Amino acid sequence: MRKIKIIGMGKYLPGKAVLSSEIDKRLGLSDGWTEKKSGVYKRYYANGETASEMGAKAAQKALEDAGLTLEGIDCIVSASGTMEQPIPCTASLIHEKLKPKRPIPAFDINSTCLSFVTALDTMSYLVDSGKYRHVLLVSSDIASIGINPMQKESYVLFGDAAVACVIRRSSDGEESKIRASLMYTHSEGARFTEIRGGGTHLHPNDHSVKEDFLFDMDGKAIFRLSSKVINGFMDELLDQASLSTEEIDWLVPHQASGMAMRILAGKIGFESRKMVNVIKNYGNTIAASIPLALHDAIQNNQIRRGQKVLLLGTSAGLSLGGLIIEY
Amino acid sequence: MRKIKIIGMGKYLPGKAVLSSEIDKRLGLSDGWTEKKSGVYKRYYANGETASEMGAKAAQKALEDAGLTLEGIDCIVSASGTMEQPIPCTASLIHEKLKPKRPIPAFDINSTCLSFVTALDTMSYLVDSGKYRHVLLVSSDIASIGINPMQKESYVLFGDAAVACVIRRSSDGEESKIRASLMYTHSEGARFTEIRGGGTHLHPNDHSVKEDFLFDMDGKAIFRLSSKVINGFMDELLDQASLSTEEIDWLVPHQASGMAMRILAGKIGFESRKMVNVIKNYGNTIAASIPLALHDAIQNNQIRRGQKVLLLGTSAGLSLGGLIIEY
Repeated sequence: MRKIKIIGMGKYLPGKAVLSSEIDKRLGLSDGWTEKKSGVYKRYYANGETASEMGAKAAQKALEDAGLTLEGIDCIVSASGTMEQPIPCTASLIHEKLKPKRPIPAFDINSTCLSFVTALDTMSYLVDSGKYRHVLLVSSDIASIGINPMQKESYVLFGDAAVACVIRRSSDGEESKIRASLMYTHSEGARFTEIRGGGTHLHPNDHSVKEDFLFDMDGKAIFRLSSKVINGFMDELLDQASLSTEEIDWLVPHQASGMAMRILAGKIGFESRKMVNVIKNYGNTIAASIPLALHDAIQNNQIRRGQKVLLLGTSAGLSLGGLIIEY
Repeated sequence: MRKIKIIGMGKYLPGKAVLSSEIDKRLGLSDGWTEKKSGVYKRYYANGETASEMGAKAAQKALEDAGLTLEGIDCIVSASGTMEQPIPCTASLIHEKLKPKRPIPAFDINSTCLSFVTALDTMSYLVDSGKYRHVLLVSSDIASIGINPMQKESYVLFGDAAVACVIRRSSDGEESKIRASLMYTHSEGARFTEIRGGGTHLHPNDHSVKEDFLFDMDGKAIFRLSSKVINGFMDELLDQASLSTEEIDWLVPHQASGMAMRILAGKIGFESRKMVNVIKNYGNTIAASIPLALHDAIQNNQIRRGQKVLLLGTSAGLSLGGLIIEY
């Protein structure tokens, strides 16, 4: 149990809104296929913007929401599932755009779609211990450049977005906390979700198979493996928090796809009215997806102070991650 | 002050040893230029091996050294400066090679050449708090695929290597600890060290300038900026540890280049006999560089239990990072 409080959040959506009806046309699909398959009505694609520019804009909003300036931040963590460029790390590039007057430390924590959950959990220990007072977490992902129109099942799902979040230790009298956290990696599913090319293995100068530089997902295999392990995972997470499913006020799942979220909620026994579902407006925005849903649910006054919130998702790896917070 | 003990380390070097005399020939340089410029006699290049394969081999050795099997590990963190592929994270791929029977959580922490220092510091809080008992940190970097023969000043420096390390909380009566840690990011130097292409900004399918997928370094600019800030950084780090330079037994610097290390040691007032310098044997191995030097100094019985050791480096970002441990 760490006495951690989310004191501000901000989001940024890139300029170009793309309707599912446009995707239908682009891919030669029948009218309505994209929205039906994905649960997405609209997503945003970056149009010349970089992930660090988007992240910096989200960060500025999170700082305003927290009533802080950048001078109050002690550490910047990029919690993104994609990288802007191999070197330096994305946090340094966000730092460059924010132009702090002090040399605030900046580094990346990456577990693909779970990066925000992993970073929030990890950094909560450093904040709880007093190492850093205010930490700025930024999830900024550009999916649109790396999706494969030949794989329509995944192409239709994704959008681009940036979300930022400021955390600090709860003051005396404040009840905000992280009650439990759990992550498991089942690497027998490491190849279910991949972009194979672009790093040291399939280097762009030595490799020319274009598909290898694009997102490749075996949705059915992910579903089979995660279905097998999710209930055991949830039991352990709830046990750690000494809570039952009924005591959780809100489920904020990774916005993977409309169908995946419905099945997940059903499997772990959550009524759909307790699930924050914003995929319709944004698509799957990789690591920005969970904080984006959290952001909107707070803004819309759904999630209120003191309520118990479960952040839960799967990611490439294949990993499961969950965090139970009292907001 | 976290009561953290390094209980095992292991290294792995890929198969192909490359002498500086061969680099002289390859780049058409005068005999001896490469070794004189870099301080490197020999480096190793991966020859068909992947970073995760190398990392898994180093991890096995670290486990043996710690007297543990994989079953005793509670979290696997890849602390590498390069990525094997964009998705999934490198820790998942190392996990896949290690084939643990349990779904040990796995994720990446990245601050380029400082990744090991950042990950050791960050994870020390989770180990100290009891979240994880044994954490396996793996730094595995393949530089050879991304260096640019047209930029001989950086080409001559690099080699490939993997190093792993197991940490746990010190038992009662054990004195091992982290006494102080500090990181600063000066993003006015974010462009001094780059691989621009391969991520979402310059995507391999949309960008064809081969140099942009290769390492690009402005050594002089790095030197100017780091020289300006290193003494203030060291003062703050030593002050946090309540130690003077004289009380530190060993300096384990990032093995950036022979000259950079000599100048650094001189600037912060370390005699060269207290500096661990292994660059001659391996070159600059990115994030593996600091743990590789630490590994060898422990193996060679230079660094002994209870001694005070300063891990110190710069990385792309531009970041400075330092950790003072009692080994």
